[in-house]
Amino acid sequence: MSPAWISQFERDTGITHAGNGVFQGELSAAWAIGAVPNGGYVMAVACRALAAALDLPHPGSVTGHYLAPTEAGPVRIEIETMRRGRRISTAMARLIQGGQERVRFVGAFTDYAHSTGIDLNTASPPEISGLDQCVPMAELSPRPVAIHEQLIARLDPASATHWLQGHPQADTQLRTWLGFADGSDADVFSLPLFADALPPPLFRRLGFSGWVPTVELTVHVHRVPAPGLLRARFVTRHVTGGLLHEDGELWDSADRLVALSRQLAIIGGRRRDGEQRPAPE
Amino acid sequence: MSPAWISQFERDTGITHAGNGVFQGELSAAWAIGAVPNGGYVMAVACRALAAALDLPHPGSVTGHYLAPTEAGPVRIEIETMRRGRRISTAMARLIQGGQERVRFVGAFTDYAHSTGIDLNTASPPEISGLDQCVPMAELSPRPVAIHEQLIARLDPASATHWLQGHPQADTQLRTWLGFADGSDADVFSLPLFADALPPPLFRRLGFSGWVPTVELTVHVHRVPAPGLLRARFVTRHVTGGLLHEDGELWDSADRLVALSRQLAIIGGRRRDGEQRPAPE
Repeated sequence: MSPAWISQFERDTGITHAGNGVFQGELSAAWAIGAVPNGGYVMAVACRALAAALDLPHPGSVTGHYLAPTEAGPVRIEIETMRRGRRISTAMARLIQGGQERVRFVGAFTDYAHSTGIDLNTASPPEISGLDQCVPMAELSPRPVAIHEQLIARLDPASATHWLQGHPQADTQLRTWLGFADGSDADVFSLPLFADALPPPLFRRLGFSGWVPTVELTVHVHRVPAPGLLRARFVTRHVTGGLLHEDGELWDSADRLVALSRQLAIIGGRRRDGEQRPAPE
Repeated sequence: MSPAWISQFERDTGITHAGNGVFQGELSAAWAIGAVPNGGYVMAVACRALAAALDLPHPGSVTGHYLAPTEAGPVRIEIETMRRGRRISTAMARLIQGGQERVRFVGAFTDYAHSTGIDLNTASPPEISGLDQCVPMAELSPRPVAIHEQLIARLDPASATHWLQGHPQADTQLRTWLGFADGSDADVFSLPLFADALPPPLFRRLGFSGWVPTVELTVHVHRVPAPGLLRARFVTRHVTGGLLHEDGELWDSADRLVALSRQLAIIGGRRRDGEQRPAPE
């Protein structure tokens, strides 16, 4: 690759500063599920604006509240800086399309290159079969989904079987390889995308299909990922009255945890426009 | 108890609506660690304002970004309603003292009494010895802490020993009983308080002491707790460059999960006023 090579993800999350904390960009249909751009992809775009506004590279913690579905096309991001600190700075972002706020983000950013203090890790990366033995997500999907074209997403065979056929009362876990189909490496901004790229772990097992809109997604980035594919583990342990919680861990090729995620989503939720959407996978 | 009896928690989280989405209250020193009211207690106060503004009783997901330490005394909470939906409504709260914003909250509220859809739970409540065998948190603390006077917080003996002496590379977990010292039962608003009431699970084990300010705390309330004491499990699996993640689960006396929590905190962080604070326990 020449130095001028820009990945599709970089291109599709590019933003420009229009002044006064307002950023402009364009959401791409390439990262959509049906007509709606993936919520993690949209968070990635917002993270670029937040990082630029705060002049800090790493999203230590970002929460998004998804108020209305986004769509491919121009997007405006309005930043309000809330705090500038020695190690952590915090800002809010309103993501606006067609004059309507679609997502509200709040993020605490830092620079891990200047981090000092203890490191501790008592967890291990997920055990996943070799890439060749794993099942492409696209093969499990009943219909083509744009975002699958952009990603390497290969499920451990046990995980894939479990997802399709597993017993509903068992632990619902997906273990998968994740990366970009164009061969580019994951950066810190891509971690929210990867954290939200798969359907919920229990999606098929309960025999339902339907739209599973994200209500709230929080991603904690721990480190800049080493080059190479990521490994991820997604688990749903709790569903309450149709409200689903999904926990994710993303690990890099150097066996280091690079991000944690948690989201609250509505199973079979309705879109704001009242339309019942097809399954997201 | 007579019907007129009001618990200390209810009294100390009471708010009044001053009109236009502005609420007023008073933070109490009774729930402080040193001079700073507990972050979960402050979230409880904000949740009451958010619930009142949205006219929905249950905080499905609330995130707080702690920008500056709060203090005992008057507090003003300004609410911005972001979305009103069929099942979920979302609002933001600015918590202000002395003209300065101290904490920013965003919350998605719901009414579980009207929830429909599947329930699933694959996790189990923590195994904890009987209350009499457990160790009061106050006995483990090197100095009196106001909030300990208000709470029943008794650690499983294995958990307490582990916390004091455990090996730093082992999993860092605290299992504890939690409740109110005045005998009142936990309600949904108290769950953020309980989720943040203990020092981090690895606090003593790494031999450090110092202020561990919360950067961001997210609490997902699942259910209204049944009467009786709560049981909780707190785990820290990851610390990166002094940034600590703590996961919590709160279970009720009917063996049901009532809340999940996750927080990002800085080990040995400095207060905004530059003062290095004593240990929070």
